[in-house]
Amino acid sequence: MTDHIQFSPERDALLLLDQRILPGQEDYFVCTNTKDTIYALQTMVVRGAPAIGVTAAYGCYLASREVAAGLGWRDNLAKLLRDLENARPTAVNLRWAVEKMRGAWAAEPNLALPDLQAKWLAMAKDIHATDIEINTAMGRFGAVLIDDGDTVMTHCNAGTLATAGYGTALGVIRGAWAQGKKLDVIANETRPFLQGARLTAYELHKEGIPVKVACDNACALLMQRGMVQKVVVGADRIAANGDVANKIGTFGVALLARHFGVPFYVAAPASTFDLSMATGAAIPIEERTPREVTHIGEHQITPSGVDVVNYAFDVTPSELIAGIVTERGVIRAPYRESIAAIIGAQ
Amino acid sequence: MTDHIQFSPERDALLLLDQRILPGQEDYFVCTNTKDTIYALQTMVVRGAPAIGVTAAYGCYLASREVAAGLGWRDNLAKLLRDLENARPTAVNLRWAVEKMRGAWAAEPNLALPDLQAKWLAMAKDIHATDIEINTAMGRFGAVLIDDGDTVMTHCNAGTLATAGYGTALGVIRGAWAQGKKLDVIANETRPFLQGARLTAYELHKEGIPVKVACDNACALLMQRGMVQKVVVGADRIAANGDVANKIGTFGVALLARHFGVPFYVAAPASTFDLSMATGAAIPIEERTPREVTHIGEHQITPSGVDVVNYAFDVTPSELIAGIVTERGVIRAPYRESIAAIIGAQ
Repeated sequence: MTDHIQFSPERDALLLLDQRILPGQEDYFVCTNTKDTIYALQTMVVRGAPAIGVTAAYGCYLASREVAAGLGWRDNLAKLLRDLENARPTAVNLRWAVEKMRGAWAAEPNLALPDLQAKWLAMAKDIHATDIEINTAMGRFGAVLIDDGDTVMTHCNAGTLATAGYGTALGVIRGAWAQGKKLDVIANETRPFLQGARLTAYELHKEGIPVKVACDNACALLMQRGMVQKVVVGADRIAANGDVANKIGTFGVALLARHFGVPFYVAAPASTFDLSMATGAAIPIEERTPREVTHIGEHQITPSGVDVVNYAFDVTPSELIAGIVTERGVIRAPYRESIAAIIGAQ
Repeated sequence: MTDHIQFSPERDALLLLDQRILPGQEDYFVCTNTKDTIYALQTMVVRGAPAIGVTAAYGCYLASREVAAGLGWRDNLAKLLRDLENARPTAVNLRWAVEKMRGAWAAEPNLALPDLQAKWLAMAKDIHATDIEINTAMGRFGAVLIDDGDTVMTHCNAGTLATAGYGTALGVIRGAWAQGKKLDVIANETRPFLQGARLTAYELHKEGIPVKVACDNACALLMQRGMVQKVVVGADRIAANGDVANKIGTFGVALLARHFGVPFYVAAPASTFDLSMATGAAIPIEERTPREVTHIGEHQITPSGVDVVNYAFDVTPSELIAGIVTERGVIRAPYRESIAAIIGAQ
């Protein structure tokens, strides 16, 4: 299952497995222009920081196809890239991917539009393929953190569906599983979008890795009962001091893990680090539509007229984190120094 | 809205506002015998420890109507009471109410069946009416704990719908509101049954008390941002040392409240204390049907075949609790001594 993000040469389009309707339905959403791509990102047809980055890379190519070759195409394209990179605020991989494409264009500003298109399509395919390699490497580095017989809790979905394939947190779990370690996974359901109940459970169950879904609020009881040996989660953005922005609820899980002495790990590629942020306090936290909380599918939960709170992310301070698994190895405290050495150096 | 539990003399039946389908529909479920009452308790047509107690009291009366007056009616009735008190394991008010009825019968073992029926109906009505008075008293004692301008977080529903009326935790909030204090409420949605999103929001919104619904996993972020000044929850059973069994997730909220320095209060009547339990470790924790987690309404969330964890309660250790509001006043640490003095004395 590594084909949830596909580029179709025949249709000159990006096909995205629609994560809004999984696991009930497996349908592809078709993006042929910037508006489609932004819609797919904002409504979470595709989500997960690395997958957002890959999508944005293809999105730049689609933007370049969209602008007619004429006097104004450069300005029009620059504007579309800005719209694209602002589609969502928290995951830095979105900006990382657009920046990468923009940088390649800046390096050859006189490229004719067809040449830029060809260059960007090749780059997007490369980012796509490289992400799978990165995750596999992360899986190898992270696998050693998981012991035979562990039950591993994960929050949200940091799997194949959150990346180009294999996954970050689920890559670590897959890596340990591939080494023949017996393990069980507890997938926190992850309200409101239910990435754990819908996506993590779907991925792992398909592969035969034992998984149980728990409501987010069961975490303290499960840890108190000794039912969780490790926690592994993904990340949307990591500050220079190791503070980690990730799906709402992660911070609470990390605090409870600290209380119960359960090691809490993060798995994320180098592209998730934002060294321009000294600490996590500066990371913007997206607020999303109330409807995610008030409705599940078409089913309305809350009384009409009642307000909701719907922050999509929180920030886990680095002192709660036992290690950050990257494709360059496992980063440990002191985080500012380790991150500068391992991430900042390249 | 204190009529969600009604005894109908015309129909000789107990009418329960069906909490499974609130707030979308307001329908009454009719109980005419023990089987109906047990079904209503087990499927959570009615829930909330004090409301379970009131329902069980009427349930004893319905059981007494069900047994035909004949040689075996005493044995049959004793058997029905045992079935009724075992309908759910965690809330002690269920057993408390059945014990109370049983005790009255034991005091006059030779009562003819019609006389026992009359006695029990009067007792059930008295328990029903008294519970409202108890909650109002709790609201007065608890109101002083809430400061003008506070945002109060509550978990699950410990309101009118969880009691005969007025509520325990929501009684404290109503008490503060009645004193003219300006306050906001954050109702944790409380998966899987969504008592917060559906019932607490419904009650408070109807009365014009400002309420917002948050997903359970937002708790750490909301407290970190200073958006919560107090937590008040109900209880299903309180041990002699002050450990509190309450809806799953309460323990996690209490740990986070401790971390962020937010006072965490419990509101519960004397009937919720079980002095036969030295600590909370002995309180049985109900596991409920996976379907509560896998489906919302008819909407299936998780992939078919995936297991879930569905513990319905957890136990909050008394050292996390700033005070327990009862109809006899606010109980403070040292809990074992205070509880023995205030609850054990009567």
